[in-house]
Amino acid sequence: MSKKITARSEDYAQWYNDLVIRGNLADYSAVRGSMVIKPAGYAIWEKMRDALDARFKETGHVNAYFPLLIPKSFFSKEASHVEGFAKECAVVTHYRLKNDPNGNGVIVDPDAKLEEELIIRPTSETIIWNTYKNWIQSYRDLPLLINQWANVLRWEMRTRLFLRTAEFLWQEGHTAHSSAEEAVEETMRMLEVYAKFCEEYMALPVFKGIKPAHEKFAGAIDTYCIEAMTQDKQAIQAGTSHFLGQNFAKAFDVKFLGKDGKEEYVWATSWGVSTRLIGTLLMAHSDDEGLVIPPKLAPLQVVIVPLPSKEEEVNKQLMDYAYELKASLIKQGISCKIDDDETKRPGFKFAEYELQGIPVRIVLGPRDMANGQVEIARRDTKEKYLHPLNETVAHVAQLMIDIQDNIYQKALAFREANTFSVNTWEEFKEVIEVKGGFVLAHWDGTDATADKIKEETKATVRCILLDQPKEDGKCIYSGNPSTQRVLFARNY
Amino acid sequence: MSKKITARSEDYAQWYNDLVIRGNLADYSAVRGSMVIKPAGYAIWEKMRDALDARFKETGHVNAYFPLLIPKSFFSKEASHVEGFAKECAVVTHYRLKNDPNGNGVIVDPDAKLEEELIIRPTSETIIWNTYKNWIQSYRDLPLLINQWANVLRWEMRTRLFLRTAEFLWQEGHTAHSSAEEAVEETMRMLEVYAKFCEEYMALPVFKGIKPAHEKFAGAIDTYCIEAMTQDKQAIQAGTSHFLGQNFAKAFDVKFLGKDGKEEYVWATSWGVSTRLIGTLLMAHSDDEGLVIPPKLAPLQVVIVPLPSKEEEVNKQLMDYAYELKASLIKQGISCKIDDDETKRPGFKFAEYELQGIPVRIVLGPRDMANGQVEIARRDTKEKYLHPLNETVAHVAQLMIDIQDNIYQKALAFREANTFSVNTWEEFKEVIEVKGGFVLAHWDGTDATADKIKEETKATVRCILLDQPKEDGKCIYSGNPSTQRVLFARNY
Repeated sequence: MSKKITARSEDYAQWYNDLVIRGNLADYSAVRGSMVIKPAGYAIWEKMRDALDARFKETGHVNAYFPLLIPKSFFSKEASHVEGFAKECAVVTHYRLKNDPNGNGVIVDPDAKLEEELIIRPTSETIIWNTYKNWIQSYRDLPLLINQWANVLRWEMRTRLFLRTAEFLWQEGHTAHSSAEEAVEETMRMLEVYAKFCEEYMALPVFKGIKPAHEKFAGAIDTYCIEAMTQDKQAIQAGTSHFLGQNFAKAFDVKFLGKDGKEEYVWATSWGVSTRLIGTLLMAHSDDEGLVIPPKLAPLQVVIVPLPSKEEEVNKQLMDYAYELKASLIKQGISCKIDDDETKRPGFKFAEYELQGIPVRIVLGPRDMANGQVEIARRDTKEKYLHPLNETVAHVAQLMIDIQDNIYQKALAFREANTFSVNTWEEFKEVIEVKGGFVLAHWDGTDATADKIKEETKATVRCILLDQPKEDGKCIYSGNPSTQRVLFARNY
Repeated sequence: MSKKITARSEDYAQWYNDLVIRGNLADYSAVRGSMVIKPAGYAIWEKMRDALDARFKETGHVNAYFPLLIPKSFFSKEASHVEGFAKECAVVTHYRLKNDPNGNGVIVDPDAKLEEELIIRPTSETIIWNTYKNWIQSYRDLPLLINQWANVLRWEMRTRLFLRTAEFLWQEGHTAHSSAEEAVEETMRMLEVYAKFCEEYMALPVFKGIKPAHEKFAGAIDTYCIEAMTQDKQAIQAGTSHFLGQNFAKAFDVKFLGKDGKEEYVWATSWGVSTRLIGTLLMAHSDDEGLVIPPKLAPLQVVIVPLPSKEEEVNKQLMDYAYELKASLIKQGISCKIDDDETKRPGFKFAEYELQGIPVRIVLGPRDMANGQVEIARRDTKEKYLHPLNETVAHVAQLMIDIQDNIYQKALAFREANTFSVNTWEEFKEVIEVKGGFVLAHWDGTDATADKIKEETKATVRCILLDQPKEDGKCIYSGNPSTQRVLFARNY
């Protein structure tokens, strides 16, 4: 087994696919567009979910659960939302099967047709705002800060494991506020929660920005996003946070009585990240040997591999120490397993753990142990070295911090080396088409120009950066005036 | 606000509904049969999920995620499964909507008809065993111990919040084994995990048993279950664990190469509990004042209510102590909040917290504090007493244990007082129709007799108890010989 995976330099798309399949993270399923998230992939999602959920709760949110199925008519209530979401979706039309009178299994019972078709949620603004109508009467009921962890489905023609699948898992926050200011503040707060999660847990620097009008969420006033760089120097959107204004409140007639006794429509936000984050994580850090997972998201942080000796007594000592070490690491909050499977050779095990991206491997060899040493292998740098046995726990605890930081610094340096500020169309094309990378350039702000640029280079306006200073200049394509550089890139 | 909820003695069904709606646990939704799980209800589910998930992992299981949609043809592969599950289900027939040419919103696009209809999973045996086929080749791939947390949907005509809804949340374990013995052992292990969870977390004693043939899971060889008693003396099935034999392996052609080099079909189990547990919890312990939640499942365990004084300095001291107490409780792992909302009267707050089922309320009154005392109120017994201030933390920590135990003992005593061993049909009818309760009685083991008994008394065979000794006797209905008493009750 364990043929090497395809090298990034050889075929990046195939490398990614190999990572997912050979790393046992996900699998294709019998249903077109749907994936099976395998235990190793789901364990990463659990880590992400727990870290995000803790931050949502720290910022005052609570979880709830809304129905999977949404009446078709709900989608027509918000004009732009229906355009964006109601088109490619799974439609439930019947509620019963019956035995085929011809004996060919089961068929849809034509008598069990629904009066109104139901849509499997592609996102839940409509069903949630239809519910909020009953929950909100006065300013005392606000803010309403609710999040949902759920599956959603968008019929996708071209799918890719984790990055784009018909069904995926996500969280969607849906909040209700008594003023525009407060809703905007919430939108920005959650964008910041996402950015911090990417940086601190995923070890991934992101650009924060606002989407140009033609790329915003269907039904939003403003869509904010975070954009990360993949190792093939493309952009990947890692999360979005929307200021929805009063659009959904008006569509579902949700008003509140203010302190001043006046009735007003409620202000809304929504925000989400999905299992796409797993694809983003892989794209950002992994290498030709397999996964590289930052310690904070690694389901297993340390593996201890005792090398068998021919002497029974020595083996017993090794195993005793292995168990003692494991217990000490777990006491420090470091997850750990011992692999003493004698049916597999050490070299095979090492390659497997590299493929799986376990951050630290500790090898207990009879000779090293006799010398009071263990071998430490770091997955991120692939360094291997001997370390004094009696300092292992403290050293590994420090390694968790160092590896997390090193992965981040490497990704940051890579992004910085591949982000260019350009002033001419020639420079722009050179970066996008030859070098690859992110481009900071002036744009006249029109859809027409963005479309032309996309048509000619496949690069899109990823976002108008939040932290970018205003600066007068000329659009690299049209030459028309611009007040700020925006972020361009090809993207996933 | 906060009119009292309906008393159990007055209208038990209405009492239950009041609990759910007034306790803000769940709400009806715009989609018939689907509920909205509100934050207070979802928080209980999170506690249940976390406790169960930890036990699944302790017993060697890992989580994964399989597709929501299942091809219709999969249901025809296991003969009895299709009878049980493929009938009342949500059928996806189309994958696109389009604008109505007459301008009436959106309609289903007739050109977007699926070649094969997809079913929203009512349970996942079929899609999972279709996947396992690719994952299992040899005995080395076994056992496969996988669990999934997911939503499922069964089209229900008569729904009741938490107890019976079309869509619900659950976990479903699906394991694969190399021998029947090992699979049976797993089936029993998970039944035991459920029983222990009910006893230790839900504070609820359960009977463990095996379902009679006519009530087993569609596709199972044997279905084991746990049955709890509600306060109206009916049975409620709280969890099931199925030994599936080789039925699904045969239906999906999943074989493994044994150590002996022979190919054999894989042995299977599946097991699940759902958001129905929330309904079960309410039915078991709550009272006419509202929810009673065992401390181990209470999202909030302690509420501290400072009573305002007219003296600013005293108020400051009360609040200082409240924060100090809260910090100390949290350090002990006890969840806690301070309610110093001055817009609501203490009496109103007390009633609210009783309705919500917060296990302990601590009231800080200026006079009591001056005397070095606080007032403690237990939700389970409704006792109120003064307690020395400087021992509050240790006392409350002990209360968490005592309340958990007291709720369990109360439920156990109630069940014991209402479980009867009877030998005649008259006695049987008297218990079922007059007294109410569980009946241990002889049954001849035939469907015909069970049907007759159900027809005449609405009581069903809940299960053949695992811990009940063999005993010769005569069927209370037919008089035919029987070797064991079984558990009868009316049920939810």
